[in-house]
Amino acid sequence: MPGRNHLYVPGPTNIPDAVLSAMHVPMEDHRRPDFPDLVAPLLTNLKKVFRTEAGQCFIFPATGTAGWEIALSNTLSPGDKVLSYRFGQFSHLWIDLAKRLGLDVEYEEVPWGQGVPLDKLEARLRADRAHEIKAVLICHNETATGVTNDLPAVRKAIDAAGHPALFYVDGVSSIGSLDFRMDEWGIDIGVAGSQKGFMLPAGLALLGFSQKALKARESAKCKRAFLDINDHIVHNAGGFFPYTPSIPLLYGLRKSLDLLLEEGLENVYARHARLAEGVRRAVAAWGLKVCAQEPKWYSNTVSAVVVPPEFDARDVIHTAYYRYNLSLGAGLAEVSGKVFRIGHLGDLNELSLSSAIVGSEMAMLDVGIPITPGSGIGAASTYWRETAPAIKPRV
Amino acid sequence: MPGRNHLYVPGPTNIPDAVLSAMHVPMEDHRRPDFPDLVAPLLTNLKKVFRTEAGQCFIFPATGTAGWEIALSNTLSPGDKVLSYRFGQFSHLWIDLAKRLGLDVEYEEVPWGQGVPLDKLEARLRADRAHEIKAVLICHNETATGVTNDLPAVRKAIDAAGHPALFYVDGVSSIGSLDFRMDEWGIDIGVAGSQKGFMLPAGLALLGFSQKALKARESAKCKRAFLDINDHIVHNAGGFFPYTPSIPLLYGLRKSLDLLLEEGLENVYARHARLAEGVRRAVAAWGLKVCAQEPKWYSNTVSAVVVPPEFDARDVIHTAYYRYNLSLGAGLAEVSGKVFRIGHLGDLNELSLSSAIVGSEMAMLDVGIPITPGSGIGAASTYWRETAPAIKPRV
Amino acid sequence: MPGRNHLYVPGPTNIPDAVLSAMHVPMEDHRRPDFPDLVAPLLTNLKKVFRTEAGQCFIFPATGTAGWEIALSNTLSPGDKVLSYRFGQFSHLWIDLAKRLGLDVEYEEVPWGQGVPLDKLEARLRADRAHEIKAVLICHNETATGVTNDLPAVRKAIDAAGHPALFYVDGVSSIGSLDFRMDEWGIDIGVAGSQKGFMLPAGLALLGFSQKALKARESAKCKRAFLDINDHIVHNAGGFFPYTPSIPLLYGLRKSLDLLLEEGLENVYARHARLAEGVRRAVAAWGLKVCAQEPKWYSNTVSAVVVPPEFDARDVIHTAYYRYNLSLGAGLAEVSGKVFRIGHLGDLNELSLSSAIVGSEMAMLDVGIPITPGSGIGAASTYWRETAPAIKPRV
Amino acid sequence: MPGRNHLYVPGPTNIPDAVLSAMHVPMEDHRRPDFPDLVAPLLTNLKKVFRTEAGQCFIFPATGTAGWEIALSNTLSPGDKVLSYRFGQFSHLWIDLAKRLGLDVEYEEVPWGQGVPLDKLEARLRADRAHEIKAVLICHNETATGVTNDLPAVRKAIDAAGHPALFYVDGVSSIGSLDFRMDEWGIDIGVAGSQKGFMLPAGLALLGFSQKALKARESAKCKRAFLDINDHIVHNAGGFFPYTPSIPLLYGLRKSLDLLLEEGLENVYARHARLAEGVRRAVAAWGLKVCAQEPKWYSNTVSAVVVPPEFDARDVIHTAYYRYNLSLGAGLAEVSGKVFRIGHLGDLNELSLSSAIVGSEMAMLDVGIPITPGSGIGAASTYWRETAPAIKPRV
Repeated sequence: MPGRNHLYVPGPTNIPDAVLSAMHVPMEDHRRPDFPDLVAPLLTNLKKVFRTEAGQCFIFPATGTAGWEIALSNTLSPGDKVLSYRFGQFSHLWIDLAKRLGLDVEYEEVPWGQGVPLDKLEARLRADRAHEIKAVLICHNETATGVTNDLPAVRKAIDAAGHPALFYVDGVSSIGSLDFRMDEWGIDIGVAGSQKGFMLPAGLALLGFSQKALKARESAKCKRAFLDINDHIVHNAGGFFPYTPSIPLLYGLRKSLDLLLEEGLENVYARHARLAEGVRRAVAAWGLKVCAQEPKWYSNTVSAVVVPPEFDARDVIHTAYYRYNLSLGAGLAEVSGKVFRIGHLGDLNELSLSSAIVGSEMAMLDVGIPITPGSGIGAASTYWRETAPAIKPRV
Repeated sequence: MPGRNHLYVPGPTNIPDAVLSAMHVPMEDHRRPDFPDLVAPLLTNLKKVFRTEAGQCFIFPATGTAGWEIALSNTLSPGDKVLSYRFGQFSHLWIDLAKRLGLDVEYEEVPWGQGVPLDKLEARLRADRAHEIKAVLICHNETATGVTNDLPAVRKAIDAAGHPALFYVDGVSSIGSLDFRMDEWGIDIGVAGSQKGFMLPAGLALLGFSQKALKARESAKCKRAFLDINDHIVHNAGGFFPYTPSIPLLYGLRKSLDLLLEEGLENVYARHARLAEGVRRAVAAWGLKVCAQEPKWYSNTVSAVVVPPEFDARDVIHTAYYRYNLSLGAGLAEVSGKVFRIGHLGDLNELSLSSAIVGSEMAMLDVGIPITPGSGIGAASTYWRETAPAIKPRV
Repeated sequence: MPGRNHLYVPGPTNIPDAVLSAMHVPMEDHRRPDFPDLVAPLLTNLKKVFRTEAGQCFIFPATGTAGWEIALSNTLSPGDKVLSYRFGQFSHLWIDLAKRLGLDVEYEEVPWGQGVPLDKLEARLRADRAHEIKAVLICHNETATGVTNDLPAVRKAIDAAGHPALFYVDGVSSIGSLDFRMDEWGIDIGVAGSQKGFMLPAGLALLGFSQKALKARESAKCKRAFLDINDHIVHNAGGFFPYTPSIPLLYGLRKSLDLLLEEGLENVYARHARLAEGVRRAVAAWGLKVCAQEPKWYSNTVSAVVVPPEFDARDVIHTAYYRYNLSLGAGLAEVSGKVFRIGHLGDLNELSLSSAIVGSEMAMLDVGIPITPGSGIGAASTYWRETAPAIKPRV
Repeated sequence: MPGRNHLYVPGPTNIPDAVLSAMHVPMEDHRRPDFPDLVAPLLTNLKKVFRTEAGQCFIFPATGTAGWEIALSNTLSPGDKVLSYRFGQFSHLWIDLAKRLGLDVEYEEVPWGQGVPLDKLEARLRADRAHEIKAVLICHNETATGVTNDLPAVRKAIDAAGHPALFYVDGVSSIGSLDFRMDEWGIDIGVAGSQKGFMLPAGLALLGFSQKALKARESAKCKRAFLDINDHIVHNAGGFFPYTPSIPLLYGLRKSLDLLLEEGLENVYARHARLAEGVRRAVAAWGLKVCAQEPKWYSNTVSAVVVPPEFDARDVIHTAYYRYNLSLGAGLAEVSGKVFRIGHLGDLNELSLSSAIVGSEMAMLDVGIPITPGSGIGAASTYWRETAPAIKPRV
């Protein structure tokens, strides 16, 4: 098919050309004496993106799923109680993984489209006078529903309850795109993957550990080997890895970290917020709603668009892909067929995202959803025009 | 700036990723004994795109400008009379180049926005009873105004006049995108460049010569050396080139020829026509006009959009570039400030072209041109939806 | 530094340009409906390289270290007894990993430079009348010492003892380079990584499981989540993965499998054997020895060259790297300072390997090891000339 | 065939990976307002490599052959007398091209293997009292024979004769590799191509013009259009080109200029001299001679190795290519069959060049030339070891 595929799933995201080129390198020896010149700045810059000075970051040759496991297995023991909330496919999967590791997972079902019930969280922690709950597991941005949780409020709830639980965050679809501050918000472990805001292929699990989390590993009895951070701590100190890293991904990460830090994290967050608002204006102009039930939960990295009940969102996705070469995200599990998702994170600007809006509109019209042609993009582009930075006039 | 640049100048065009990768090769010896395995199929496939079986194609490590010169200097002598028409910047430049080579160029000024006046052409040739006119030079698609000429009608005019003049065509922004048939339409030389329909960087002048044109070189006295086809004829016979070729471009050309022939030339032409019509629907929905004055001249590779007289099109282009990372084509020479151009040729699909329409709309609104947000893309996408091929339903 | 680095560590190995280009692709949706068109042939072709029809192959976004863990954790339970031999750093590390997973590892120390003592293996299995030993763990090719074990003989020993133990093989530096036949040799799990014979960056753990091994997972109680093959079995059936795969590596793997199968596995093995013999001839011409104590153990993927006792091999490696841009493998653990290693696996030919031999010679001379300049490469090149295939004469 | 091709023709040369990656870029608009940010530094840095402050450099989307024509056609008129010497295929070709342009070329035949006869040159210029000779054309480095001329001595001869002739130099296989100083040596035009010392694909003709040469164009009557520097002077002033440039090559040139200037031109020259001397030591150790008859003419970019008269050098080249994947340069025209050429220019180090020496040795032995295996590389590597810079000891 001529022309590019238009990729708007909420990860893996579009890779900037500069990152692709940075990864196109001949192989090299990961034990060469000057290899630390590559590795050390990566770990330093990663801490900047995780917003931690006190903590330590890790780069595993694995994926975000492994990241979830690294967080748990390195700091907890079988039978330990953890508290979580299930409000989408990814919060579900982390809970499932914790169970498989033998943890005692207490979790509450939350309607998909809502976020963590902060009052209940606080109440539950208050009730846990024996401090049996060792860790609270929160999915920052539920990629399946486009719901973002208020992490400072979670921190506040934990503190209000005076509870010593560790605070673990799945930041896979948030870190590097949405405001995320490990130290300031008292997050003990943040988990990211390379294929979302870091604009890389999948293949790296990126983690930040607070000193409290690092200390927890001393008593952690979960079995671990490949995913043991201890070997990384030992080898990272010298600028190396305990086993062969994926060297192209390290070069890609170097470039993507440079891109993020050169743009400035605050600017990155603002860009995501502005682009996302355009998408939501389009959805409103179509007369539709996003899955997130309240503005406080609106995600700036992904919007799950709810189709009218008489239609199947899978037809929209199918039509978009086969007719217009547009990749939209599917509704997963409970929201399958009910929503299609537009990912708006990573290396994007207004006009690239326009393709996603125009294509969604065309596919919805094709399957019969009654919307006005041009209405969505008209609303989005008007918003973007109103909020675009001024430019110097032509001389 | 995050996100890609949206490139919609009418050349150089977007390079498909597969072509970019095909050009990313280690260097090799252009005199290796099996080098002809690369070269011979290129020359064969090039003939298919030029639609010639009787003629011969050439690949020069140069540009379309060189192609114009190759056509003239290899077949004509200083002082030879040639006939042409000036109706845009590129027809102008070819005329200018012919003059520099010492040819006696007779040309008529045609209002920019119109094409070759066929009746006048025929009349002029009929009047040339002494057959002093050695060649007729026609720009197939005037990239500056978005005007396409009817080449079969030109052929018919020459034939009707019973004139033996050679028929040379500038096909730089048409060959590989618009219907072009060397043998069937009796074209003696067709000139193309790599950076338009061939979806490559600039750096190759691609030419087709008829047997009549090849014969003309026997008496041609224009001085030539680097651009002499004779050395190519000698070396191409063995599958080589007379001097070092740009090997990455040859690999890129191999891939782009494969892409064009796999899609099928008729499909390529139809795709360009359909995408272009969408752009024209957008222009009409904005209440504007293209520079081409009549539908018979509408170009399917580039549309020059005329802005209302109280605005300067250069402001639209400036705004599109600096505010939305959209590259539009400028108005050149006589139409500078009056038009902006949307290139719609090469590796494109509906949604990529949507970015150009949406971005043009945003930039026009920003400079104050009163159009309705979403109107252009609404009209274009409606047309594209109506004409998109049916797909298999989801199973 | 001008010129390329000459990479001759025994992994990661040189990546063919065609593979590098194959990985340079825009990102895509790993849930697109036609994604199985990419995945299914990978799994099929991987089985060809593992030489299994009865078994099943897996592709994990991880490394060879993870591969070791996948083998054990999916089929065994904490406390299960496994039998192994420690004769180099990598056989050591697998044993260490097995212990961390809570297995009861019984292993024998073997002098580094020797391989598995087949008679003792058989005797130990015979003695295990209760069949407490659940699995035998054998490192096919010990990368640290350049020792290759005779896997059919291991199989024979197990069979001779009439023991039902599973037979697990670390084939990280052998599969795809050395003769390896899962079905024929009754191997229950073979573990490979992408960065050796598969000529890719690290980042994929590649495994083959026999039906017996697959069945073993039903009772396996080791905790596992990210590394659980069960999710792969479920998703691979449809041509998908349970979590986001590293898509560039999949495209790279497609290309490297094509390269291996086009060359023909028997030819690949023979090429490695012939190139390796050249290196050994060079070592002999230098008057030195390889670490492998007997020809039956000579590895065709890596040679560990023992330097005279009065020298430190680390000086040779240091000089080679900083003075001649040559990366040699270091001696690890017990053989640190005693050997330097030349990796000769993957995408290599005679003349590329010549650089490694010439550079080793230069570096040894620089540190004072008394060898004759040109002696090593003279011996190697003579052997390669004598064994090179005949070519057609020049016409 | 597994493993890389070993490319040692004297151009096109090996492209550094960093340059290949620099060229792998999406297409862009060559008329974008910030395009001069790319172009202007290129022209500035090019002047540094040509060693001119007073002159002006040009970048044409063409080849070195075009460069020869650009030099002549922009500064001379048909019938103008020029003086040259023919001592190899490339000095021959430039003379031939000058004739085709209608110049009156006076040239002397010099035995191939020798360089310009300086005394005769001076005598001829002295004899030209009427100053009919408008330009002296000297091939700096004759790529066919491996002969380098002493340009300062040529300048001295012109000055000694008190002759005002322009001094034009073919520096295609010297500029960027051998010492070349436009201003200091009073060179009026230097011609280079991208595919030699600039380590790029062919596709750029690079030229330096002195003010005297720029002035000469005012009276030059050779017809020119595509190759007219006037359009470049006009457009380069603003940071643009008169027609579409090959944008990937511009990015590649940016990188290659950076590499040359970062290494330092004096270091680049010294590296070429040292590597070349190693090759010559190898030739001597084989008991053979290079084509250049005296050390003063030895080229540091290419060595033409003379095979014993009873052998055909084409068999060596054929065997090297088909048996060992080594590309050597053929003997051209008068020296066809008598020599094979090893190019040693561009992105090279000792160990890469070792492959060429070892492979040449193997191929010569295969065709029966009686040399001692290892002798050539032994001599070369001994020289390189003796002259390698000291390194810091291992800590």
